[in-house]
Amino acid sequence: MSAHVRAEDRECPLSTAMSYVGEWWTILILHDCFDGYTRFDQFEANIGLSSSMLTTRLKTLVDNGILAKRAYQERPVRHEYVLTDLGRSLRPILVAMAAWRNEQLAPSERAMVLVDTETGREVEPETIDPVTGLPVSDPRFAFRAGPAAGEEMRARYDVP
Amino acid sequence: MSAHVRAEDRECPLSTAMSYVGEWWTILILHDCFDGYTRFDQFEANIGLSSSMLTTRLKTLVDNGILAKRAYQERPVRHEYVLTDLGRSLRPILVAMAAWRNEQLAPSERAMVLVDTETGREVEPETIDPVTGLPVSDPRFAFRAGPAAGEEMRARYDVP
Repeated sequence: MSAHVRAEDRECPLSTAMSYVGEWWTILILHDCFDGYTRFDQFEANIGLSSSMLTTRLKTLVDNGILAKRAYQERPVRHEYVLTDLGRSLRPILVAMAAWRNEQLAPSERAMVLVDTETGREVEPETIDPVTGLPVSDPRFAFRAGPAAGEEMRARYDVP
Repeated sequence: MSAHVRAEDRECPLSTAMSYVGEWWTILILHDCFDGYTRFDQFEANIGLSSSMLTTRLKTLVDNGILAKRAYQERPVRHEYVLTDLGRSLRPILVAMAAWRNEQLAPSERAMVLVDTETGREVEPETIDPVTGLPVSDPRFAFRAGPAAGEEMRARYDVP
C-alpha cells in the first residue's frame, strides 16, 4: 500500500483502492495485462517506461498481490507476469473508467471500446445496484459509515 | 488534462480517465463533493491539505469542468464548489473503487458502505453489460480498437 495514506484514511475504501490503482503506470500495466500481455518486453514496448522504472513498478504490483511473477522458460530463465485473483478483481474499475470517457464521445469518436466477443457488439457498461437494477448514480444511493467506522468516519456521516 | 499524457495515449479512454481522476487528492475532494460538502473550509478540514494546495487543486477541478465555483454569499463574497454534470458522471468510478475494496472485507469490517437510503440496505454494486446482464469481468468481454483508433491502438488489437 502506498506510503502516503494518512492513518485516518486507512479505513476508507476509496483511499485504499487509490493506493492500489491511483497511479498512472498501474493502470497502463493493468490495461496490458487485461489485454493478454504478460512479458516484460511487451510492457516495455507498449508503455514506454524505462526498463528500471518498469522493473520497480512490476515489483510493486507483485508485492501488492495484483500480479504474480512466474517462470515460463527455464534456460535461460524467463518470467512472465500474470494477474492474480485480486488483480482480476480490479477489472470493473478499469471498465468504469474507460466507459466514463467513452460516454463523452460519439460512438464514431471512440478509439477503444469494450465488446462482447461472442457477438462483436459494443458494450456500454453500467455500474448498478443488482437488487433494484438502478444505476449507482441514482440519488437514493449514498455512502454511509459502516460497522467498522472509526470516530472520524462516523462523524462524517452522522446525520444530525 | 494532466501534462503527462503521452501523445499516443491521448486517444486511450483509460489514460484520459486517469488524467481526470488519477490523483489521490482528486478522489478525496470528489468523495467530499458526493457526500454533500461544498465549501473550502469543509474540504480543508476533511482532507487535511494546506490551504494553498487545496486552492490549486480545486482550480484544476474547475478548469477540467468537474466542479463549478459559484458565489453563495455576497458580503463578504463566499464561494462554494459544486459538481457539474461531468463531475457527477464520475460517480460510478468512485463507487466501483469503494466496492472493490469492500469486497475484500467481511461486511462487519467495512468502515464506509454504499446504502440505499430508502431502505437502509447496504448496496453491493456491480459493473455489468446492461444487454446481457453479465458482469464486465466475464471473459467474453474484451477491449478492442474502436472506429477512431489510430495506428498504435489498431496494432494493439489486431487479431492476426
